[in-house]
Amino acid sequence: MSFVSDAATSDFPIQNLPYGIFSTSTSAHKRVGVAIGTFVLDLSVLETEGHFAEFDAACFHDSSLNRFMAQGSTVWSKARATIARLLSADEPTLRDNEELRHRALIRMEDVQMHLPAKVGDYTDFYSSREHATNVGRMFRGDDHALQPNWLHLPVGYHGRASSIVTSGTDVRRPCGQLQADAKDPSKGSKYGPCRVLDYELEMAFFVGPSNELGEPISISEAEDHIFGVVLMNDWSARDIQKWEYVPLGPFGAKNFATTISPWVVPLAALEPFRCEPSFGPAQKDPQPLAYLTDPSYARGTYDINLSVSVKPEQSDQAYTVTKSNFRNMYWNMKQQLVHHTVTGCNMQPGDLLGSGTISGSTDDSLGSMLELSWQGTRDVALGDGGLTRKFLQDGDTVAISGFCQGHGYRIGFGSCEGKILPARQCNA
Amino acid sequence: MSFVSDAATSDFPIQNLPYGIFSTSTSAHKRVGVAIGTFVLDLSVLETEGHFAEFDAACFHDSSLNRFMAQGSTVWSKARATIARLLSADEPTLRDNEELRHRALIRMEDVQMHLPAKVGDYTDFYSSREHATNVGRMFRGDDHALQPNWLHLPVGYHGRASSIVTSGTDVRRPCGQLQADAKDPSKGSKYGPCRVLDYELEMAFFVGPSNELGEPISISEAEDHIFGVVLMNDWSARDIQKWEYVPLGPFGAKNFATTISPWVVPLAALEPFRCEPSFGPAQKDPQPLAYLTDPSYARGTYDINLSVSVKPEQSDQAYTVTKSNFRNMYWNMKQQLVHHTVTGCNMQPGDLLGSGTISGSTDDSLGSMLELSWQGTRDVALGDGGLTRKFLQDGDTVAISGFCQGHGYRIGFGSCEGKILPARQCNA
Repeated sequence: MSFVSDAATSDFPIQNLPYGIFSTSTSAHKRVGVAIGTFVLDLSVLETEGHFAEFDAACFHDSSLNRFMAQGSTVWSKARATIARLLSADEPTLRDNEELRHRALIRMEDVQMHLPAKVGDYTDFYSSREHATNVGRMFRGDDHALQPNWLHLPVGYHGRASSIVTSGTDVRRPCGQLQADAKDPSKGSKYGPCRVLDYELEMAFFVGPSNELGEPISISEAEDHIFGVVLMNDWSARDIQKWEYVPLGPFGAKNFATTISPWVVPLAALEPFRCEPSFGPAQKDPQPLAYLTDPSYARGTYDINLSVSVKPEQSDQAYTVTKSNFRNMYWNMKQQLVHHTVTGCNMQPGDLLGSGTISGSTDDSLGSMLELSWQGTRDVALGDGGLTRKFLQDGDTVAISGFCQGHGYRIGFGSCEGKILPARQCNA
Repeated sequence: MSFVSDAATSDFPIQNLPYGIFSTSTSAHKRVGVAIGTFVLDLSVLETEGHFAEFDAACFHDSSLNRFMAQGSTVWSKARATIARLLSADEPTLRDNEELRHRALIRMEDVQMHLPAKVGDYTDFYSSREHATNVGRMFRGDDHALQPNWLHLPVGYHGRASSIVTSGTDVRRPCGQLQADAKDPSKGSKYGPCRVLDYELEMAFFVGPSNELGEPISISEAEDHIFGVVLMNDWSARDIQKWEYVPLGPFGAKNFATTISPWVVPLAALEPFRCEPSFGPAQKDPQPLAYLTDPSYARGTYDINLSVSVKPEQSDQAYTVTKSNFRNMYWNMKQQLVHHTVTGCNMQPGDLLGSGTISGSTDDSLGSMLELSWQGTRDVALGDGGLTRKFLQDGDTVAISGFCQGHGYRIGFGSCEGKILPARQCNA
C-alpha cells in the first residue's frame, strides 16, 4: 500500500510504477517521473536528494528514458525497489516530509507528458494470426489468407520513428496518392484526402540494453532487453496503403502519425499477469525453428485487457468498438526481438517494437475498422442510438485503453488517444 | 585554386569541399572537417579562431553534422564561401600561418572517419526503372515486370537506421530464415547462413531543415531541404529477402548493414553537373501528379559516374563489375523527398534517403549481383583470368566509387567499401 491515498483504486497503484517524461508550467525542463495515483513522482528531485545511491541515477534528470533504459534489469530492479519503498505507507521519508513531498509529488493535472524516449528506430510487427488472416481473406481470399512465411517467423517492417507522437496529439487526415479506379490499378492514381482512415489497436515495447551489430540476441537473453510496454495506435490510411504497398510495404499510409501512451509500464509490473496465449496450445504446427523456440512460450505473454473507443466530435460519449487482449498474439515480444536481430541487426535503448494489430477471434475483438466494417461493407455501431462508422471521420477521437486486473488492484496503461483533424487543402 | 598543392588533381579539389566527422589518434574528440586534397581541414579549429563570424558555427565542434544540416542553405553557402576563401591560393590567413595550418590541416592518413550524422530515420527508394524492371522480370515475368504504381510514385520503404555504418566497416554474412525448398514455399523454412549475399549500388542524400508533422514539403521547396550526397551500399541477403518480404517488405535481409561513404558532398559542389536523366524525355507517360511535377525535372538530376568493384581476399586487384551513373534514375531526389512527406511525415536533419539500386540499360551497368548474374544463372567475370562470381563470397571487399568530371578537375566521393566476414556459427 502507498501513503498516496488514491493510488490503490487508480490505474497507477504502487504495483504499477510506470515511467514517463514530464514537465510542468513552472518548470519546463523535461525530466523522469513515475505515476502514482493521481500524482507524478519527480525522480529528479529524489535523485538530487540522494535517494538513488545504489546506481548512477543522473539519468532521471534526462529529457528521455534512453539512458535509464540502457542500464538494464539489475538497475531497473533497484530503482523500482527504491521507488516502491519511498511511496509505501510504512516509510516516513516522503510521507512525513511535507516540504519534500510537495516538491516531489506533482498533481497529474499539472504536468505535461512528453514522448518517453528518443526512438532511434521503430519497427512494427504483424503478429496476431486473426488480424493477418482477416486482412489476407479480404485481399487474397479464404484459401490464401496467410502468406506461406507467416507461421514461420514474426513478419515485421521498419516504421517511421520521427512521427511517433504522444497521447493527446491531434492527427491530421493525410492527403496522398489513391488508386484512381478502386477495381483497376491500371487506371493509375489521383491525389486527394484519405477516405478510409483507420486505427490499429497495438501495444509496443521499448528496448533496453543494446546488442552489437552482427551479434543476435538469443531467446534466453531476450527478456533482459525489454524495458517496458505502452499502448499504441498505428493510424493507417487504407486507400493510400492499398495503392502504394506493393512490393516494399506500407509507407506514406503509416508515416503521418503513430500515437503511444506516455507511461511505460515495466515488465516487472506485468509479471503477475504472465499467461498463455489465448488461442491455446500453439506453435505446434509448424514448430518454430530453434532460434525462435521459447522455452517459456507457454507463459510468454501477458493478460492485458485492451479496448478502443471512438468519440464523435458532436458527442459527449466515447463508444467502445473493440475489446481485445494482448494475449491474442501468435508471436510474443521475445520472439519478435530475437527475430529482429537474427541477421545481426543492432538494437539500441529506446527502440520501439510494435505488436501489430491485436485482433481476437470474436466479432467484437477486431482491432481495426478495416476488420470491423469488413472493408467498409458493414456498419459499425457506435452505441445503440443509430450512430455508425465504417471508417474514421473528422473530429473523431480514438482512445485505446488497457489494464491488467489483479486481486484488488489494477495495472493501467494511461491514455493513448488522438483526434482526427480535417485534411489540409489538398491541391492536386 | 587552393594552396593545398595536391588538391587540384585529387578527388577533393577546392570545388568539392565535402563535410565529414573525424577524430585523430591524438584527439579522440569527434568534430567536423572538410576534405581538401589529401588533407582534412579541421573546422572546429577555424571556429575557435573566429573565422565563422557570420553564423553560429559552434556546430563544428559537434560529433555529428546534424546541427549544421539543420541550419539551411543560407548558412551552408556562407560556410562554403568562407572555407573556399581560407583554402584559396590567394588568401594568406592559413597559407602563411604555419602554426595555424599545422593545427587546422591534418593528413587524411592520420584521421579516423565516423558516420557524418546521427541518422534519425533512414528510407530507401527503388527509383531506377531498369532495376525495378529487372527485378520484376525475374520474379513476375516480362509482362508484369513493373507494378502498376511504379510509374506514378517513387516507391520506397523505411529502412533500419541503427545498422548504417561508415566505409571500412566489415560486414558479417548474416544467418537467418531461408525457404527450405526454393521452388515450394509451402515446405516451410530452415535456418542458416545467407548463400546469396549481394551489394546494391546506391547513392543517398542527407536531409537538412525539418518540416513540421502534417506539413508536406512542396516540390519547389524540396531542394532547400537537401544537404548533400553520399555513396551507399545497401547490402542485401537475397535468400532471406525472398522468404520474408511478403507482404510488408524487406526486413532482416537488409537491416544487418548499410555502408555509406564518410564525406557528404554538398549540392553546391554538384551544381555544375546538373543534367537530364539519361533515359531521355521522361515522365510523360504517365505524367506525374501535380505534387510530384518538378518544373526543373529536365535538369533535376546530376551526372555522377558510379562504379562497383569486387576484390577477392586472395587477390591484390579490385575488379570492376558495374559501371553506372546517378542520372540512371527515373525519380529524382526532390520527388523522393516530396513524396516522402506528402501524407505529412516530418523529416529531420540528418535523415538519410537512399536512391535504390542504380542500374542502367546496358549489361555492364547493372547495380547488383542479382541482376548481373541474373539470379545466379550466369557467371560474372572478375577480370579475364577466369575468376567469377554469382554472388559475394567471404573475404570479398566491395567498393563503390563515384565522381563528377569537371573541366580540369573532378569531384570525388571518397571511399564506400566493406569486406565480407564469414557467418557466425549458425546454430539452428
